[in-house]
Amino acid sequence: MDWNSLYATRMGKVVASDIRERMKLLAARQIIQLGGGLPDPSLFPAAEIAAATAAIFADPARATTALHYAPSEGHMPLREWIAGYMTSIGAPCGVDNIMITNGSQQAIDFCGRLFLSPGDTVAVEMPSFIGALRAFDTYEPRYVALPNEAEAPLPVGAKFGYLGSDFRNPTGTAMTLAEREAMIDKAAAIGLPLVEDGCYEKLRFEGQAVPSVFALAVQKAGDVEKVGVLHTGTLSKTIAPSLRVGWVAGPSAVIRKLVLIKQAADLATSALNQMIALAVAQTSLDRLADAGRALYLRRRDAMLEALETHMPPGVTWTRPEGGLYIWVTLPAHIDGAVLSERLLMEEAVSVISGAAFYPVDPVRNTVRLSYSLATEEAAREGVKRMGTMLSAMLETAVAAE
Amino acid sequence: MDWNSLYATRMGKVVASDIRERMKLLAARQIIQLGGGLPDPSLFPAAEIAAATAAIFADPARATTALHYAPSEGHMPLREWIAGYMTSIGAPCGVDNIMITNGSQQAIDFCGRLFLSPGDTVAVEMPSFIGALRAFDTYEPRYVALPNEAEAPLPVGAKFGYLGSDFRNPTGTAMTLAEREAMIDKAAAIGLPLVEDGCYEKLRFEGQAVPSVFALAVQKAGDVEKVGVLHTGTLSKTIAPSLRVGWVAGPSAVIRKLVLIKQAADLATSALNQMIALAVAQTSLDRLADAGRALYLRRRDAMLEALETHMPPGVTWTRPEGGLYIWVTLPAHIDGAVLSERLLMEEAVSVISGAAFYPVDPVRNTVRLSYSLATEEAAREGVKRMGTMLSAMLETAVAAE
Repeated sequence: MDWNSLYATRMGKVVASDIRERMKLLAARQIIQLGGGLPDPSLFPAAEIAAATAAIFADPARATTALHYAPSEGHMPLREWIAGYMTSIGAPCGVDNIMITNGSQQAIDFCGRLFLSPGDTVAVEMPSFIGALRAFDTYEPRYVALPNEAEAPLPVGAKFGYLGSDFRNPTGTAMTLAEREAMIDKAAAIGLPLVEDGCYEKLRFEGQAVPSVFALAVQKAGDVEKVGVLHTGTLSKTIAPSLRVGWVAGPSAVIRKLVLIKQAADLATSALNQMIALAVAQTSLDRLADAGRALYLRRRDAMLEALETHMPPGVTWTRPEGGLYIWVTLPAHIDGAVLSERLLMEEAVSVISGAAFYPVDPVRNTVRLSYSLATEEAAREGVKRMGTMLSAMLETAVAAE
Repeated sequence: MDWNSLYATRMGKVVASDIRERMKLLAARQIIQLGGGLPDPSLFPAAEIAAATAAIFADPARATTALHYAPSEGHMPLREWIAGYMTSIGAPCGVDNIMITNGSQQAIDFCGRLFLSPGDTVAVEMPSFIGALRAFDTYEPRYVALPNEAEAPLPVGAKFGYLGSDFRNPTGTAMTLAEREAMIDKAAAIGLPLVEDGCYEKLRFEGQAVPSVFALAVQKAGDVEKVGVLHTGTLSKTIAPSLRVGWVAGPSAVIRKLVLIKQAADLATSALNQMIALAVAQTSLDRLADAGRALYLRRRDAMLEALETHMPPGVTWTRPEGGLYIWVTLPAHIDGAVLSERLLMEEAVSVISGAAFYPVDPVRNTVRLSYSLATEEAAREGVKRMGTMLSAMLETAVAAE
């Protein structure tokens, strides 16, 4: 059978993520990894998770709950805990405002499924998280830019706007309080729902915490039921990715629709994983987040210092106060894809070309760095090689003029 | 914000599954459950799963693998095991022919996402599995009937056909060898891809096993790469639902597309759950399936005997050789929805109205029974009450004529 002719139109357009393909390549070689933004496995609380799991199976009733289908909404005690957590960060929520998902990636996908039919418009930051773009792609939308600047008008006619307010992938930048408040007001004025990706929220290691767009919207409206914002969260960055436990928070009427989508998509998230995640979150989340913040702060500092030391003139970069990413803007005529390819092949250093983070009109003189997996020594050596190669590329470009 | 006006068109049509809503109601009362088809928790191998989990965490390298992102394709050793399992049931597969999903529900949803754009046609058996219909609904298709009879022509122009060859939900019936072979030939003749739901395959407790449509297609083509059939499987019915481990098997070119969908949907299935499922499958799957088959056979027998004893004339039912369901056809003027509602409210017996299993043109004089959770005593008592009520409804109907 010639399957290729049978796929839905959009599937022809869905291509392998550059990052994931590159990760496979990396696994086979001794590479300095400044590319992928995976959490450092040394942070995984294996002992706590093992103990939590043993405790579940030591109690026959809990063991049965752990092995049977969870409700599509999620395991109730975990929903209660997350509602309390959301309340503690300034967004008072009840259990009916929370649904559990397989990581926040699934929450983002479900927002696409909820709002988008083919040909609809979605507004995203440019650049934006690749995982969100790939999820939205499967619903065949058109993309327009969602500008963060307080004074910039929002696009009219989009079905929703997707944004990462804290240390977003790929830029590492955070929205200011004024930008968040303006975003809420402007979106409300044109009836644009917002989906806020909160996955890096717990990873602020510097500067003053700013309430999430969701929390500000709840405070402004006085009631979560009245807000025009959904918020996604995850325990992947603070406990462990493979529990696959994330959530979406929002007005209960929207959560009820998302529960129907969850039911249709995979019935429910693993009850076992939800129970493990709850037990570890209750006892250890703050300690785990502290350990992650301390490690990533040291690594960010090493990478920023190396950039100062080794980048040639004309290169600029962001200075994240949290999260895992630094966004580098190269001189205008340097293509980040060429740089990343040559760095990998000639210098065994992995960085990610920035163009892939734009759904339309890619800005090509960009690369994304991550310090999540790079030891301080690796960051220094990798950035040094990148600087040397960039200087050589710039000289060649000058000589060619 | 008025969210209701913002959802994609199809979301207005997506309504809560009657079954799931009913299950919530049931949880609160002492009900004889002849409705939902959940596996019996007494079969869950809690001790084996606890031991497998402890062994994973006792080895630091395995613990790290268990807690980090699995590849989107799935944990390689589990894919290898499933490829071997598929080979052992007559469908020689390699790892590239297997992708892991969150239960087979997610595999079914992904097939919808792969093939369907709004307005496309999908062919399904009538009646058909509700979970598949709800998943396909979100892609806004039109439905046509996929007849199983060997001589019936298949509908032309559908993007794919979805079928359950073994003991399908809701009828409990299995396709004959001749029907399977004819289905493959007819589908190939019109270029119709087939998606075979294999979730009840391991639950045959009587009669001669018939190879799956997928296995027959591989044998016919001589090579899995050439078949026009995808096959979904799961460990939910034989190990435990909440591991959420299922799979889809097919030509590697299609699996590669499905991997991109998986990546966009939720990145990967939990590595921990995949490793647990593999360990238990390797040591205990046959024993667990034996225990399930023995239990469900006893319960089926009790239910069939009770039907013989208590059903009034004019009622017929299927006699499943496996799986969890019996499909009951009532006299033409009896509405299964009225019967199920009255049985629940007046007699505390839960059965499922058959109409919901039809995406179009519901046949209303039908109900689905399941023996999966009903002890032999409960089946006898519940079916007796159903027979008494049906007899009364028939007398009322005769009196009214």
